[in-house]
Amino acid sequence: MALNTPLSIDLNCDLGESFGAYRIGNDEEILPYVSSANIACGFHGGDPSVMRKTVRLVLQQQVALGAHPGLPDLAGFGRREMAVSPAEAFDMVAYQVGALWAFIQAEGGRLHHVKPHGALYNMAAVNKELAAAVAEAVYKVFPEAILYGLAGSELVRAGERLGLQTANEVFADRTYQQNGTLTSRRRPDALIQDHGQAVQQVVRMVREGKVLSQQGTDVAIQADTICIHGDGPHALAFAKHIREVLTAEGIQVQARHS
Amino acid sequence: MALNTPLSIDLNCDLGESFGAYRIGNDEEILPYVSSANIACGFHGGDPSVMRKTVRLVLQQQVALGAHPGLPDLAGFGRREMAVSPAEAFDMVAYQVGALWAFIQAEGGRLHHVKPHGALYNMAAVNKELAAAVAEAVYKVFPEAILYGLAGSELVRAGERLGLQTANEVFADRTYQQNGTLTSRRRPDALIQDHGQAVQQVVRMVREGKVLSQQGTDVAIQADTICIHGDGPHALAFAKHIREVLTAEGIQVQARHS
Amino acid sequence: MALNTPLSIDLNCDLGESFGAYRIGNDEEILPYVSSANIACGFHGGDPSVMRKTVRLVLQQQVALGAHPGLPDLAGFGRREMAVSPAEAFDMVAYQVGALWAFIQAEGGRLHHVKPHGALYNMAAVNKELAAAVAEAVYKVFPEAILYGLAGSELVRAGERLGLQTANEVFADRTYQQNGTLTSRRRPDALIQDHGQAVQQVVRMVREGKVLSQQGTDVAIQADTICIHGDGPHALAFAKHIREVLTAEGIQVQARHS
Amino acid sequence: MALNTPLSIDLNCDLGESFGAYRIGNDEEILPYVSSANIACGFHGGDPSVMRKTVRLVLQQQVALGAHPGLPDLAGFGRREMAVSPAEAFDMVAYQVGALWAFIQAEGGRLHHVKPHGALYNMAAVNKELAAAVAEAVYKVFPEAILYGLAGSELVRAGERLGLQTANEVFADRTYQQNGTLTSRRRPDALIQDHGQAVQQVVRMVREGKVLSQQGTDVAIQADTICIHGDGPHALAFAKHIREVLTAEGIQVQARHS
Repeated sequence: MALNTPLSIDLNCDLGESFGAYRIGNDEEILPYVSSANIACGFHGGDPSVMRKTVRLVLQQQVALGAHPGLPDLAGFGRREMAVSPAEAFDMVAYQVGALWAFIQAEGGRLHHVKPHGALYNMAAVNKELAAAVAEAVYKVFPEAILYGLAGSELVRAGERLGLQTANEVFADRTYQQNGTLTSRRRPDALIQDHGQAVQQVVRMVREGKVLSQQGTDVAIQADTICIHGDGPHALAFAKHIREVLTAEGIQVQARHS
Repeated sequence: MALNTPLSIDLNCDLGESFGAYRIGNDEEILPYVSSANIACGFHGGDPSVMRKTVRLVLQQQVALGAHPGLPDLAGFGRREMAVSPAEAFDMVAYQVGALWAFIQAEGGRLHHVKPHGALYNMAAVNKELAAAVAEAVYKVFPEAILYGLAGSELVRAGERLGLQTANEVFADRTYQQNGTLTSRRRPDALIQDHGQAVQQVVRMVREGKVLSQQGTDVAIQADTICIHGDGPHALAFAKHIREVLTAEGIQVQARHS
Repeated sequence: MALNTPLSIDLNCDLGESFGAYRIGNDEEILPYVSSANIACGFHGGDPSVMRKTVRLVLQQQVALGAHPGLPDLAGFGRREMAVSPAEAFDMVAYQVGALWAFIQAEGGRLHHVKPHGALYNMAAVNKELAAAVAEAVYKVFPEAILYGLAGSELVRAGERLGLQTANEVFADRTYQQNGTLTSRRRPDALIQDHGQAVQQVVRMVREGKVLSQQGTDVAIQADTICIHGDGPHALAFAKHIREVLTAEGIQVQARHS
Repeated sequence: MALNTPLSIDLNCDLGESFGAYRIGNDEEILPYVSSANIACGFHGGDPSVMRKTVRLVLQQQVALGAHPGLPDLAGFGRREMAVSPAEAFDMVAYQVGALWAFIQAEGGRLHHVKPHGALYNMAAVNKELAAAVAEAVYKVFPEAILYGLAGSELVRAGERLGLQTANEVFADRTYQQNGTLTSRRRPDALIQDHGQAVQQVVRMVREGKVLSQQGTDVAIQADTICIHGDGPHALAFAKHIREVLTAEGIQVQARHS
């Protein structure tokens, strides 16, 4: 990165996860704070009507639009791992990316990125074959899209191998291990409860490319995009806070050009 | 049509309606006889893996590829009417067209047409608002696609109003009323059982633009495409027969350029 | 009814319509005000885990437990009419009643009633064949259950013909026509906005068996159970109000013995 | 077992796995050869209408009726492992057992057993907590039912701990390891191709309670029920053959009394 290039980071959020009569998330409230939105595609959440409304809403805010494909498990919200084959993963990602593309096309927008959801995201982070299949689906269906994946994961590597643009995702409110992985949610020290500490972790990741691990040593990490949660009692307050601090630190909040 | 233009007709068939472990239809056997294929998109039949395989199969045969969106009713195979709103119809057609587009894109093909399935086809044939919504979804998502609908139906008219290319679909094995509609399946004279008679009805529709109604009078009908069924005990024999007769009559079997 | 029998009425409410990560309704808050609860069975809402929790919750409150079977249309919350055959209606009601029975059995409770949901309720109110099929499913699977249906509807009549106990359902907040049917929701005078007026309509139905129609004449109506809505901004306030007024009027709020 | 008690074995088969327009299996043809039938309950296969028809068919043949609950994965036919919690497994088994009970109740029959399907069967064979949850669901909903599970598995043990009747299932066409487990399907020697050899393995299991492992040593095994496949090219021929040999060997084919 050249000396004079201003630092920047993308803030992404999962949107459009309502389904039929069921509402989830605070899509309208969170949108002003993020620079890219991951839209559910009907498998783990979302339905065709929610997708159309969400795409329209996001386009009004000039936020980058991404597909957020998940496992076919609405009852489990796509969070339960399923033993899908790489070919099945390819197929379900292709299907969902295409379905979202249709609504973006109908509204005159542009698909910017793809970020797998939940258990599919987690499995593709560590399973090389699944990662390759997911990345290939994006590459074959919409090669201009940026592939979002866990920083340093198999998914990001698979995207890079295919020549896809990728975005390494980091978490503001999660702690890290000295090998660069996230601390397991089963451990009591997995989450950073303090908003100030969470934001400072992000600022350091962006400025220095480092994060302090739970073992007390610094670990190199590439932070291209940060996941902001759209629901929960403190989600909006945190989104507002992180955006303010980043701006004050001279770090631009923006999606990367795809 | 200029004097020297050879007569032609499209033979279309519904394909890719298998689901998971469930097989339906004789896709590979029927393909050599048709010029365009309507691929199920996961709502009434088909799943992402079946879609990928079917798209690949159709491309090998150089048959025109179309989306075959249906109502979200797998248990009813999309044949039970549902009180969906025009907006919901728009959304479900857009979603499914996009999903199929993804597989065609991945395989390097081109989406040629869209033909609604089952109850959605029937409702859009007579309900002006639903017809407009279905046609608009095709227009907004993929305006180059040809919209297939029942000959003379509201759906075809809705497509024409938007400037879409349309194809009037006729049936070889159904009888017609003097107002140009199909004889209701509830009547005993709805179906033409004799293969020879069915083919001759088609030939006359193509050559003269006329069909003899059950009331004994000729009715004007535009025949752009004929629906060939892919399953049933006599489907293959009939497909082979109609193709042979059409060829012998100097009528080319081919999909229209989209 | 004998002179000394105290007047009574049942207040019923739809519960357990959440699904997976999606929450809908205020089940815990509304329960203290009602005497019977209709539990969603997984087709229009509810899932196995929600069903178990809801059954447990209702049993703690000593409220009568009923099955609330709907059409297989989660995306439409069972509110879109579908052209299901009487045989299909039988099958989907039997399936859902059995599924709910399992959780009641597991928790040591007793199935008290069955009330169809949404479009299935509406269709069975006017379609004699569907009504007969729904009633027969209840009769064949759990003949001790009380069948709840719109007051004076085909569904109630179908239940009576089979010898089922039935409960005529009335609505506090809907106006009536002189033929005893509900004013269509498409008309501006369909709803009673004033809580006091709504409750007085109920009191008169219970005391006198009459309701004042929109045409200004009294109509005979049998009121065995009143539908109380569990969601919406004023639902809890109205439930509390109607319960207080009924008690003050000496009308007991209780489910009928099944 | 007393000296004069004739040897007997149960032959079970999965039935009713068709769905909507989709047909799978040869239910009517296989029924005469088996003594108990496991009926799909709508999650991995089957639908309410198929369940009713299948229950009726089985009752005509006086074959014992069992529930065959699976994971909620129709597209994967319940064969893909899913990370469901024990509570979720309890709930989905309870739901499906109740749903099938309804049709048996409607037809005047009796629920005889419960056998989990596919990935749920496999997971409950080795995962103690899942096994306990599945067994408890059967125990709480229908304690008279016999729980079918892999011979010697966690599922059978979990059922025994609760005081349920259990049936140890063995496979005619699979080879065994010296620790009593099935040879993994990933190994080339997993399947016994020769019908005669497969039947002799069964006869020895029934007569001697032993099976020759792939390591060349005998292993003790309890054979209460044998799984017969209903589809595949040789299914019927094998079913007929095994039934004939067992009869010739003086081994009665019958379901255990529940």
